[in-house]
Amino acid sequence: MKLDKSNFSEWFDTVLREAELYDYGRYPVKGMGVWRPYGFKLRRLVLDNVVRKILDETGHEEVLFPILIPKDLLEKESEHVRGFEGEVFWVTKGGHQELEVPLALRPTSETAISYMESLWISSYKQLPMKLYQIVPVYRYETKATRPLIRLREVSTFKEAHTAHESFEDADKQCIEAVEVYKRIFDSLAIPYMISMRPKWDRFAGALYTVAFDTVMPDGRALQIGTVHHLGQNFSIPFEVRFQRRDEEMDYVWQTSYGISDRIFAAMIAIHGDDRGLVLPPHVAPIQVVIVPIPQKNEEDQEKVNNYVRELEEELKKAGIRVHTDNREELTPGAKYYYWELRGVPFRIEIGKREVDNDEVTVARRDVKGKVKVKRLELRKKLEELSEEMLNSMRERAWEFMKSRIRETDNIEEAKKLVEERYVVEVPWCGREECGLKLDEEVGRVLGMPLDKEINVEGKKCIVCGRKAVTKVRLAKTY
Amino acid sequence: MKLDKSNFSEWFDTVLREAELYDYGRYPVKGMGVWRPYGFKLRRLVLDNVVRKILDETGHEEVLFPILIPKDLLEKESEHVRGFEGEVFWVTKGGHQELEVPLALRPTSETAISYMESLWISSYKQLPMKLYQIVPVYRYETKATRPLIRLREVSTFKEAHTAHESFEDADKQCIEAVEVYKRIFDSLAIPYMISMRPKWDRFAGALYTVAFDTVMPDGRALQIGTVHHLGQNFSIPFEVRFQRRDEEMDYVWQTSYGISDRIFAAMIAIHGDDRGLVLPPHVAPIQVVIVPIPQKNEEDQEKVNNYVRELEEELKKAGIRVHTDNREELTPGAKYYYWELRGVPFRIEIGKREVDNDEVTVARRDVKGKVKVKRLELRKKLEELSEEMLNSMRERAWEFMKSRIRETDNIEEAKKLVEERYVVEVPWCGREECGLKLDEEVGRVLGMPLDKEINVEGKKCIVCGRKAVTKVRLAKTY
Repeated sequence: MKLDKSNFSEWFDTVLREAELYDYGRYPVKGMGVWRPYGFKLRRLVLDNVVRKILDETGHEEVLFPILIPKDLLEKESEHVRGFEGEVFWVTKGGHQELEVPLALRPTSETAISYMESLWISSYKQLPMKLYQIVPVYRYETKATRPLIRLREVSTFKEAHTAHESFEDADKQCIEAVEVYKRIFDSLAIPYMISMRPKWDRFAGALYTVAFDTVMPDGRALQIGTVHHLGQNFSIPFEVRFQRRDEEMDYVWQTSYGISDRIFAAMIAIHGDDRGLVLPPHVAPIQVVIVPIPQKNEEDQEKVNNYVRELEEELKKAGIRVHTDNREELTPGAKYYYWELRGVPFRIEIGKREVDNDEVTVARRDVKGKVKVKRLELRKKLEELSEEMLNSMRERAWEFMKSRIRETDNIEEAKKLVEERYVVEVPWCGREECGLKLDEEVGRVLGMPLDKEINVEGKKCIVCGRKAVTKVRLAKTY
Repeated sequence: MKLDKSNFSEWFDTVLREAELYDYGRYPVKGMGVWRPYGFKLRRLVLDNVVRKILDETGHEEVLFPILIPKDLLEKESEHVRGFEGEVFWVTKGGHQELEVPLALRPTSETAISYMESLWISSYKQLPMKLYQIVPVYRYETKATRPLIRLREVSTFKEAHTAHESFEDADKQCIEAVEVYKRIFDSLAIPYMISMRPKWDRFAGALYTVAFDTVMPDGRALQIGTVHHLGQNFSIPFEVRFQRRDEEMDYVWQTSYGISDRIFAAMIAIHGDDRGLVLPPHVAPIQVVIVPIPQKNEEDQEKVNNYVRELEEELKKAGIRVHTDNREELTPGAKYYYWELRGVPFRIEIGKREVDNDEVTVARRDVKGKVKVKRLELRKKLEELSEEMLNSMRERAWEFMKSRIRETDNIEEAKKLVEERYVVEVPWCGREECGLKLDEEVGRVLGMPLDKEINVEGKKCIVCGRKAVTKVRLAKTY
């Protein structure tokens, strides 16, 4: 197997398969894959140590709703269903019977959750209510599917749904959600652009949508998170009423925000290299692999084996996820290759010299070279190296992303840059007409940058030449 | 709200609702409910601290398969599909299109997993392969549904699937599975009977089925776990072939074993009382609730508040899940009632006397009375009390179950005892004809006891009078 990240698409599929993360394209339903044990462990660590941890710390409470939503419920908010109806999987039969009401495999849960909120919420005292669930969602995609990027079964959808007393509170919640997502992506060293999506690309039923996009190795932008202010668009049809502080009745104000399997796609794609995965140490299923170096002399071998056993025990006790590769049929070189492919952050080599000097040789996955570390200092050193590694992964990732962003005031150049897979920021008059033209002729409109100052003094819309009111980001997207 | 466990059915529904565990009967799809935040936390602690922990420790690896299984795959093992086809939910449409092949919402995953195993397994070196997943499964139940007991969406199905080199290895795996389940149920203080299901009640496609049943407060038996030896019944149609040690090709030998939401139903039903939930301390979402006692004097109040804050901090640091109930609108009595309903194992009351004596008053949820504990000794004492509490819950639960089991050699008495909701053990000739008659006329045949010595010397089958070869358990079941 040969890995070449410059051919990203093939690289990505190969790494998912060969590192035994996610078996895709062989399960007999299109657009649905299987998380294998190593991939599942990675998924669980990301969810537990990052996503759940940050959501729980910020007062979100986890729930679990049924996967099925009755058709009449899904259709209650008309704009919402228009956004999804072409791509819903429908359950129409139970046993040999036709169901009275078709049931949708949830494409997202605003309707189901609003329905239950109408039963749960009666007073401002219960607000804000901040719920989330981590569940599969379903889209009958007609576009080409891609593992973890465009699936018919999105196996990991983290959707948060919040209810508030006022428009302003929901607005503030959107800001908190953006901060939550920054923390999540920062923790995984995934760089992002934050943009206000144009109104023709809002979530179906939202007042506005803020989105996080990253840039994949092939230069295409990937939406990795969205935050929606839903206003009262769902609470009115679903009658989620509450008594306000002034004792008047009102409908709650809602937000929702989601991230999906793409969080794994981005993490894998952005950090990996021609040797395979590179994983942030705090979510790596195996953080340290120990490779004993074979000795000619039996006595030396015995010494090495004992040393390895003790070391493994020490690291385990310290809560480090460590594995010793004792396979006899493989050379050390073959083992290095095997664990590099799987992205194990640290490899420890133990031979006679290490035993004699009471030290170990440590190789870090993301850089070349090895360091000698005294055994007594190993735990502390691994902590330091983990932090260094994550920082350096983050830095490199942000540098790469920034190198893929350009500004221009010229439509022809914008087209050329998008063709060359750059994200382009251009002045825009703010009119939908010109926006749609950009969408069609230049690149997908990601929206107005929210993560930087925008200065359009003296600038003109690159489509119509009118005075520009903002800039928009354009890109070839997934 | 009045709780009366002697009216078990109403008690159970009321506790689920009032303790805000699982919202059932209001979600607009029959037989499907919503896990609310408090229930979700309990569910997660049981899964993470008990189920996953024990499965991971015994070499099982977690995976995640798609929820949809194509019709042709499900039908590949003919006996299997006959067991399920009357109760499968079918996805027949994607968007506005009819699907070419209907897709089943998985009723169980033997077929999907065997299909992928045929791609993964090629050599004995990969065996045993011990996989599990915790996922929802679907049954279009025609019987009356009941929360957590008989659902159309079983929200929590832990299914393990293993592959082995030989019949004997699969057989041994069934024994390991039984030991795993004992550990799981013991950990939650749930008593069980282990029985070899009669052949007419085996899992569809199994050589044999071993089942765990418990006895609910109303005396009805509840199946809470099953273990199946699948032989080569799935590996042959799905062509899960491997090279044996002797280099011949063969089909793998498989087992599967499952537990469901009923683990929560049993835990809640068996331990609860007329005040509500009683939870084993190691899975309780809140282990300790602190209730400050209101003081007339402001200075005293300040002292109490400070003491409470410090104590909460101390307990949190020790990894204890603690909550202080500071609600001003509720009396201490109302708070006791509130947290007792929710099954919090320990309540700590802090008034002026406690502050002055540097001690706390601790009430244990499962017994009456309170004890004074010096603050310095509190952490150690809570550990001791947790163990005592779990042991005493376990003892009481086993005593209750044993009190509901009777033996008799007389069919009329057997009928009467089953009528009175006892589990009855009777001598049996082993012939299906007589077994089916027992099933019809006396009570559901749970099968041959595997958890006790059986002596049928000189005994006769209570149906036909022939020589008995074993005993069988009969009961009214859920």
